[in-house]
Amino acid sequence: MKIGIIGATGMSGQKIYSEAKARQHEVTAIVRSQPKALQVLGSDAKLLVKDAFDLTRADLIDFDVVIDAFSVPIGKQLGYLHLDMAAYLIHLLRETDNPRVIFILGAASLLDDQDKPYLDSFKSTPGADAWIDTPATQAHELQLLRTVTNVNWTGISPSLNYVDGPKTNYMRGENHVLFNDEHKSEVNSGTLAAALLDELESPKVKRARFTVRNAN
Amino acid sequence: MKIGIIGATGMSGQKIYSEAKARQHEVTAIVRSQPKALQVLGSDAKLLVKDAFDLTRADLIDFDVVIDAFSVPIGKQLGYLHLDMAAYLIHLLRETDNPRVIFILGAASLLDDQDKPYLDSFKSTPGADAWIDTPATQAHELQLLRTVTNVNWTGISPSLNYVDGPKTNYMRGENHVLFNDEHKSEVNSGTLAAALLDELESPKVKRARFTVRNAN
Repeated sequence: MKIGIIGATGMSGQKIYSEAKARQHEVTAIVRSQPKALQVLGSDAKLLVKDAFDLTRADLIDFDVVIDAFSVPIGKQLGYLHLDMAAYLIHLLRETDNPRVIFILGAASLLDDQDKPYLDSFKSTPGADAWIDTPATQAHELQLLRTVTNVNWTGISPSLNYVDGPKTNYMRGENHVLFNDEHKSEVNSGTLAAALLDELESPKVKRARFTVRNAN
Repeated sequence: MKIGIIGATGMSGQKIYSEAKARQHEVTAIVRSQPKALQVLGSDAKLLVKDAFDLTRADLIDFDVVIDAFSVPIGKQLGYLHLDMAAYLIHLLRETDNPRVIFILGAASLLDDQDKPYLDSFKSTPGADAWIDTPATQAHELQLLRTVTNVNWTGISPSLNYVDGPKTNYMRGENHVLFNDEHKSEVNSGTLAAALLDELESPKVKRARFTVRNAN
């Protein structure tokens, strides 16, 4: 498949990029900084160097899949850019079924066993003001996506702990947080990337969100 | 005030334009078609001729108020453009308090006396499929706006019947549909324009929505 990755040099994006390359897909990293991208992804990386908010429909329409792995630094109150990026991509791709668009969401919109979003408990954590804007706007992002019926979108949420690490076996869920037998909710970036590529190669979820955890 | 109106040649936009002009504000009509705008608004109209989705922050930043009176033809399943336009304007004006941005919303997000949005009952109206997309996305638009804490926005909803007509006295409400003594929920376009200009000249509602009905 022809896969375009926005934010390919970030924690999620790097792992998705290398997993997709390892599976022989034709991958384009959509990045702002060419030198950084070549350093992080390798000198043979195929790049589209552009600010994501300057992308046009023509830039995206020939991909089979566009992955929004856009991220912003935590603690700078820039979380709203997650929402704005999703709205921007949705607008560019209205009334299309192709490319499929994948949004890497946070865990805050996942539900607990009372069907309450974790965002509610995140908000009441002491010191949450410093970092809540990113989880909050990623929850709003999913709320926005759920209103969209004329774009082929899928969301993927990590587990509560999303850590940089290699791929493992994994378990999939839908809208509830997944825990392992030790009541740990954790997924590696490599695992999320593998689960995402599996979903691309064998689509199961359309206009909905799924989640993933490390198998053990 | 310097006021920019997106969709100034539409039913709402025309009345807002003429009400603002009558009150001696410096009004710019932001329109796609110059000939149509000059015909509808008069040959002395000050225009910014541009597709609204091509507007830049620089185009808007010197206004005191930007009014989103953007509208689309009913029945063509283009209602999603309301949502996309709101998201686009919000993105352009993130982290500003000026200009203030006013969104003309529909009535579907207003609540009945059971606190249920009218959208729910609209959806179950026979034949609703043909026209529900615009009320639905305008309700989603308000949902989106309510997540926005770093733009100076205000929403205004008409009553259930929104008819083209001259200004009358009016009653204001917040999130519930307003009815007159004969259980009629109606507002004229001229009345909505007058209520909006009153709100601009004497601000009462920030990052929230209000509604208006004809006084009798």
